[in-house]
Amino acid sequence: MKPAFTIGLDYGTNSVRAVVVDCADGSELGTQVFDYPSGEQGVLLDPRDPHLARQSPGDYLEGLSASVRSALAEAEAKPGFSRRRVIGIGVDTTGSTPIPVDARNRPLALDPKWKDDLAAQAWLWKDHTAADEAAAITAAARQHAPQYLAPIGGIYSSEWFWSKLWRCLKVAPDVFDAAASWVELADFVPAQLAGVESPREILRCICAAGHKAMYSEVWGGLPAEEFLSRLDARLARLRGRLYDKAYPPDRPAGLLGRAWAETLGLEEGIPIAMGGFDAHYGAVGAGVRTGTLVKIIGTSTCDCAIVSAADRIEDIPGICGIVNGSIMPGYYGIEAGQSAVGDILRWWVEGVCEGREASHDELSAAAARLKPGQSGLVALDWNNGNRTILVDPRLTGLILGQTLHTSRAEVYRALIEATAFGARAIIERLAEFGVPVERVVCCGGIAEKNDVFMQIYADVLGHPMRIAGSPQAPALGAAISAAVAAGEAAGGHDSFEAAQERMTSLKAKRFVPDAAAKKVYDELYGIYRELHDAFGAVSGARSDLGSLMKRLLAIRDRATAH
Amino acid sequence: MKPAFTIGLDYGTNSVRAVVVDCADGSELGTQVFDYPSGEQGVLLDPRDPHLARQSPGDYLEGLSASVRSALAEAEAKPGFSRRRVIGIGVDTTGSTPIPVDARNRPLALDPKWKDDLAAQAWLWKDHTAADEAAAITAAARQHAPQYLAPIGGIYSSEWFWSKLWRCLKVAPDVFDAAASWVELADFVPAQLAGVESPREILRCICAAGHKAMYSEVWGGLPAEEFLSRLDARLARLRGRLYDKAYPPDRPAGLLGRAWAETLGLEEGIPIAMGGFDAHYGAVGAGVRTGTLVKIIGTSTCDCAIVSAADRIEDIPGICGIVNGSIMPGYYGIEAGQSAVGDILRWWVEGVCEGREASHDELSAAAARLKPGQSGLVALDWNNGNRTILVDPRLTGLILGQTLHTSRAEVYRALIEATAFGARAIIERLAEFGVPVERVVCCGGIAEKNDVFMQIYADVLGHPMRIAGSPQAPALGAAISAAVAAGEAAGGHDSFEAAQERMTSLKAKRFVPDAAAKKVYDELYGIYRELHDAFGAVSGARSDLGSLMKRLLAIRDRATAH
Repeated sequence: MKPAFTIGLDYGTNSVRAVVVDCADGSELGTQVFDYPSGEQGVLLDPRDPHLARQSPGDYLEGLSASVRSALAEAEAKPGFSRRRVIGIGVDTTGSTPIPVDARNRPLALDPKWKDDLAAQAWLWKDHTAADEAAAITAAARQHAPQYLAPIGGIYSSEWFWSKLWRCLKVAPDVFDAAASWVELADFVPAQLAGVESPREILRCICAAGHKAMYSEVWGGLPAEEFLSRLDARLARLRGRLYDKAYPPDRPAGLLGRAWAETLGLEEGIPIAMGGFDAHYGAVGAGVRTGTLVKIIGTSTCDCAIVSAADRIEDIPGICGIVNGSIMPGYYGIEAGQSAVGDILRWWVEGVCEGREASHDELSAAAARLKPGQSGLVALDWNNGNRTILVDPRLTGLILGQTLHTSRAEVYRALIEATAFGARAIIERLAEFGVPVERVVCCGGIAEKNDVFMQIYADVLGHPMRIAGSPQAPALGAAISAAVAAGEAAGGHDSFEAAQERMTSLKAKRFVPDAAAKKVYDELYGIYRELHDAFGAVSGARSDLGSLMKRLLAIRDRATAH
Repeated sequence: MKPAFTIGLDYGTNSVRAVVVDCADGSELGTQVFDYPSGEQGVLLDPRDPHLARQSPGDYLEGLSASVRSALAEAEAKPGFSRRRVIGIGVDTTGSTPIPVDARNRPLALDPKWKDDLAAQAWLWKDHTAADEAAAITAAARQHAPQYLAPIGGIYSSEWFWSKLWRCLKVAPDVFDAAASWVELADFVPAQLAGVESPREILRCICAAGHKAMYSEVWGGLPAEEFLSRLDARLARLRGRLYDKAYPPDRPAGLLGRAWAETLGLEEGIPIAMGGFDAHYGAVGAGVRTGTLVKIIGTSTCDCAIVSAADRIEDIPGICGIVNGSIMPGYYGIEAGQSAVGDILRWWVEGVCEGREASHDELSAAAARLKPGQSGLVALDWNNGNRTILVDPRLTGLILGQTLHTSRAEVYRALIEATAFGARAIIERLAEFGVPVERVVCCGGIAEKNDVFMQIYADVLGHPMRIAGSPQAPALGAAISAAVAAGEAAGGHDSFEAAQERMTSLKAKRFVPDAAAKKVYDELYGIYRELHDAFGAVSGARSDLGSLMKRLLAIRDRATAH
């Protein structure tokens, strides 16, 4: 069998990474990171509005060319590699990151008329300007179309597609009117590579459509015009200029067009895989399968699991997305997450303790010397709200059990434990609704570097904790999607499962639950759940404390407004 | 009228202070602090037992001579002063600090046979070796003599008289057997000055007897032999070698004997006032009166109030002591307190933030720039348990409302607010049971130096906060007691009220409640009380969280034991 290679492109928040991968074993032959040149670390900001986060679409295209060419150049120095044996390209991106485009599929922002208009740029996933619109969409759906909310956990987010488009319509109607359509970044890049010249001809991925745009085949695609017209008639009229159908990643988004083939020095006509979100392709690259939960642990956490589409599963209360085909074809893709994990530790170490990078290591070492339960502390992991399973951004943190001797290392360990308890609450909710978890595979710097973090998770969750073999799981997942799209050409990768079998791996290091520690953590988790249910206003919790954090936030908001 | 002066002696934890005071206006003519030379900062420790804290009785006598002589020497340099016009001596001390003595009223520790035996020394107030004995006394009293617990808040402490004596009996029976009697430090010093040569002849103060030894005229003095024999027959047999009656501070403990008169260079036969605890005489020196609460704010807080003995008041649940005559004759002395105030701030600033002395000022300045409610935080002030009104040492701290942006200054302010809320809970409980509080007078370094602390207290309590005029309120209170004991000789100070009128003052600076801040704090206090009642297991609180902190401590204790 001839050697074959694919390229995985991973569009992150601050940079894009290209990797050249060997389809035989997933090994990397070349890799290059390109930092977006615009704004602050690639993000366009508005000094008057801390919630605004946009991105320049030009950066995406410049980064595409630069990162792929450099990665290929590096690969060419390796024996056995040939550009002519690059048989496909896969793309993963952040999302929801919608881009307004003109009738020829060109971002408005590339037009000199709009180039300095923040509303004409890509609306980055973490843009939070559309909080009012999100609340109004949630309210309207609760009243008129509750089915739209069921598969996304019950609350429509300000980070998502319709909130952002509606916000644009309100604050920049000229941009909204000038846009022929809006395209998710995950669809935009493949369409560019394939030379698609009309927004209507873009093949949209089910991943962005199902998780962020309330798309489902159950109700015939995007939300009905009737529903959208409750929000704004112009949104309803836009619906027809978007898309009718979205696709799982088992068919290509297109074939590499001549222009990009020449720019990149690749063969014209090789398949471009369907785009997808970084977390989803990260799960693929980490080896997600039935019974394996993939945790992508960064500032926040994204948890991905899959269940065979043959086993029709219910909507799971508090789980933010269940979409058929969104991670791998033939499976329900299930997405959950915690709104702060690394961020909570950074808050404590750098924000409160005013430590530096090295302080993380020092505190981890001190925390490792403590036994489970020894600090007498328990905390809630809600400093940035709760994404799963309470789906409530207006919750806050709690630390309990301090004495006059409580040390910063004890609090640090209690905060790690709190995030582990939050992770356990998610896994228990999944299991309760028929999504079994027997093994956890982690990606991200914390998983690779922080052993005490991983051991605490093993002890709290009661499952072995493994680490994905590739430190670039999303890019590898995108490269796998390209291998599948290329089918026979990639050595018989006719399915994601077969491609994962060859191209993914796990690191040898494993963290196995310690029975004695597990026992203590079972008890502490019980206490965590009492606090979780009381302060999270879980129905049936016998206390009046469920509104307490919100009342404090209301007092804070009034105090800040004066 | 001739000038007249008295001496106040204040025996603290690490040193004794003598002040020479003008009876006309309370001004200080001379002052001297003597640091106890033994142990660590005057405290004898046991490296094998962190709960042990003893003191060398020899240090008390050495400090008496050294401090008074130096203070007198300083006074003699002032115009108008004469040793011959020193007309009385008053003494306040820590307590319960019992000392085993021989039949001639000499501390056993001064006998070479016992000088190195820790059990033969003074058992300092903060010695916590007798926790088991305290729990057993509480249990026995609950079952057989609940009346003993009612005026002391319902729980007998390991810091108190009988716990310590019983402990000594168990661990050092030879010392127990050698002791002819035990004398509180507050009674020991006056008796020494008066040359009392038999323990049975010592006039004991009601202050130590009533607050620490379960003495009450209602049941005829100390606890009945029958009750003590339930603990240990030898304790019951000791009862007869202690005392039958205790006295309020309206009669002298004796007259200055020749030996000490010569040592100090004072007139023989001047009255020695009845001894008392530092907090109580501090309240006197700060100008305690009906409607005025005196707060002595240090590492912990002692709150003192008085109510006319003509108004018979009930026992107040959760208030640790109500004793007729203990602070001033003719009044019920009421003692409450918070087990950590300055200690909580020090824990945060020095323990967690690893700051230095100057960091307190920096954080206070930053906290002063925050508005009430702005941090979104609320905390419980229980890092060292709760002394009043829950009387539960096995409670712990709680901080709630953190986000990823919460700063150390915000937590610092929230902890000050928590202690203010704890103070408000005490004042509300007092008011509920007929002890009105209209004004708060504070003593201690925090009150004098930390303006943001004082303003927060004014806003939370809704009362003006004042600061005692003398930074040495306990020593001044002792000097006042001497002036009263001297009667006519001190210019007509025939009552404590009259003496206070002339000899005490308030600093000009006052902290007045701000109406807008008070409104926010009323709301935050409501939230504090919800947490207080839920986690403090206040009966009627609709939650299951009342045992949560104790369960965490049990887990911690098991983890630490392994």
